[in-house]
Amino acid sequence: MQNVKPALAEQHNTQLAKILPSPIRVIDAEFSEIPNLIKLTLGEPDFAVPEHIKEAAKRDIDSDDSHYAAPAGHLELREAISDYLVNRFDTPRYEPNGEVAVTVGASEALYATMGGLFNPGDKIIIPTPSFPMYDAIAKILSLEIIELSTAPDYRLTPEKLAPVLEAHPDAKGILLNYPSNPTGVTYDAAEVQALADLLGQHDLVVISDEIYAELVYDAPHTSMAKLLPEQTILVSGLSKSHAMTGYRIGYVAGPQALLQHVTKMHQFLVTTAPGPMMAAAIEALKHGLQDAEEMRDAYQARRDLVLTGLEAAGFEVARPSGAFYIFAKIPASIEMDDLAFVRDMAEKALVGVAPGSIFGAGGEGNIRLSYAASTEDLEESVRRIQAYMADKLN
Amino acid sequence: MQNVKPALAEQHNTQLAKILPSPIRVIDAEFSEIPNLIKLTLGEPDFAVPEHIKEAAKRDIDSDDSHYAAPAGHLELREAISDYLVNRFDTPRYEPNGEVAVTVGASEALYATMGGLFNPGDKIIIPTPSFPMYDAIAKILSLEIIELSTAPDYRLTPEKLAPVLEAHPDAKGILLNYPSNPTGVTYDAAEVQALADLLGQHDLVVISDEIYAELVYDAPHTSMAKLLPEQTILVSGLSKSHAMTGYRIGYVAGPQALLQHVTKMHQFLVTTAPGPMMAAAIEALKHGLQDAEEMRDAYQARRDLVLTGLEAAGFEVARPSGAFYIFAKIPASIEMDDLAFVRDMAEKALVGVAPGSIFGAGGEGNIRLSYAASTEDLEESVRRIQAYMADKLN
Repeated sequence: MQNVKPALAEQHNTQLAKILPSPIRVIDAEFSEIPNLIKLTLGEPDFAVPEHIKEAAKRDIDSDDSHYAAPAGHLELREAISDYLVNRFDTPRYEPNGEVAVTVGASEALYATMGGLFNPGDKIIIPTPSFPMYDAIAKILSLEIIELSTAPDYRLTPEKLAPVLEAHPDAKGILLNYPSNPTGVTYDAAEVQALADLLGQHDLVVISDEIYAELVYDAPHTSMAKLLPEQTILVSGLSKSHAMTGYRIGYVAGPQALLQHVTKMHQFLVTTAPGPMMAAAIEALKHGLQDAEEMRDAYQARRDLVLTGLEAAGFEVARPSGAFYIFAKIPASIEMDDLAFVRDMAEKALVGVAPGSIFGAGGEGNIRLSYAASTEDLEESVRRIQAYMADKLN
Repeated sequence: MQNVKPALAEQHNTQLAKILPSPIRVIDAEFSEIPNLIKLTLGEPDFAVPEHIKEAAKRDIDSDDSHYAAPAGHLELREAISDYLVNRFDTPRYEPNGEVAVTVGASEALYATMGGLFNPGDKIIIPTPSFPMYDAIAKILSLEIIELSTAPDYRLTPEKLAPVLEAHPDAKGILLNYPSNPTGVTYDAAEVQALADLLGQHDLVVISDEIYAELVYDAPHTSMAKLLPEQTILVSGLSKSHAMTGYRIGYVAGPQALLQHVTKMHQFLVTTAPGPMMAAAIEALKHGLQDAEEMRDAYQARRDLVLTGLEAAGFEVARPSGAFYIFAKIPASIEMDDLAFVRDMAEKALVGVAPGSIFGAGGEGNIRLSYAASTEDLEESVRRIQAYMADKLN
């Protein structure tokens, strides 16, 4: 280890320091130390990338696609994204030159969007419970975060949203995420339309993170980009639909007046995305729709397994209609906060899940279970949780 | 094209808006419209990635390395970086856990470093002419930039640096880059030692961008990380040494007290780097030293060709001992600013180079020529430039 010059030991960005180290990863690391524990903490597909997509990446490597791509990404990928969004979700046709940019995962898409569009002190509404990275990025950028708890049913409705919009007429943006991490809640067409109608009456940018759009189980996905394109920045990527998390390809689409700033920010963050990984994304979007469907069917079976199992174990669960998470309320008779509870369950039941409180207001008293895991592990986890809860509730 | 909601048409980060679109790329795009023009504007290797490195990436894809890596990157790569730095540049041994992080190119390394360590208003010294991204990132982060012109010989010396350090005792950081883009200037061991001695007397973080370290022609590279490890963040990557620009793998190394903040920032920017591209980097660092040497020898021959040719054409050139750029002064008798000159030369000589003024104070009145191009193109360019200059100077 190198010694730091003592005078520099405290040199750091003070906004960044306000953010605790990624809490899910801290707990995940803690659970990794417990032998025989089954971890259902992280939201990561257990599938491999489909073979034809891997082959496309390898062919691209062979073809020496190793020079800088355009800042917004390979044009062929931007075209494939534009076509995919129209064909799959009936969005307007985004112009590949100017209205689409390829990013390093949805993470960088979120940073480039918030960093490109907002200024320190700008108010941004974040419905919670939510993916902790929204809050973290907003804090780093010195945005003022308006939390909007969607508890107890974890559904964002015009009734919950309207008073917050009225109380903050100067809000510059809102972050939507459906299907939702961590709750698995999503919305049908009428519900999205109702939100779009309300948001359309207010002058704020809607950042709609729809990365789980291919993973819906009860109704088709309706994109905010279809209903409110003039004020929506759509954020998505290939990580969840095609199990390509490690390939790190995400994207943004939106009106050029806004997207130009997002793309510019993106350029100063990473220059451009890696070529061979973009080639994989082209293949996934052009010839991989069926892969996404097969994975979705597998996740749906797992959801049913875990949902039934958790309800039988005594948890109250907001029906998860998308993504691969179940958000379950710890029974009131168990007098532990969610962090103590998940630690206790990890130790005694050897199943690791995330504590709900790390997802913001309204999340406390819940656990988040990711069913992006093998069916065997999920079956065994349900058995262990049921035995643990039977003991706990007696 | 989508219409944006009129009330949102001007929504953007005002700091970001202060930065003009990447000026090199604007000019490069302009020159792309001129038929038969040879472009020597961008700093991008024309070599392909060596076969064994491509094979390593493909094997990694086959092995299903498609899940999230650790935020700081695959441990095997961090170990390879640490070993490489010790073996190649005699740096201290950086601990792979905590003192090394893998980034999406050196660009993201720079953003994560400045974003992780500094606060709005912090002063940062940038010797110029310099890579425009330093200035851009500092502006986005609202840092106060202290420009230090190294003209006329483009060498940073203690004599030039000391008064700036004394005038700004509260400066939090300095950005070094050697071998330098855009000048090709680099420093021998005694010169680096003299700078390190001076910098060691001041309490500021030294961000040392040594991405061109493998491309030195007259003397071995001496790393600031060797001489001043307690206050240096070393920034580098594989883009220039192994022609891997499009793979987007960079890295940072430094004392944990500082690097922890850089790594944390990195995590919120991009989560982690893409796995298969990291596998390529492991192979390059472990088994690709000779590739870098072969490319260096080729660049050196090209440098000699272009240097001789430009001097014969009437340019005064600061001897370029590294990287793949030549920075040449436009003869005083030509009464045009550098932007007008490069446009005139593009039109009349059909050779495109970058105007020196885009690299900051001291760059005006120069051109930057990138010799990361084929020998044939360089030979033809020299002929064209010589004919053009003969005409111009008569």
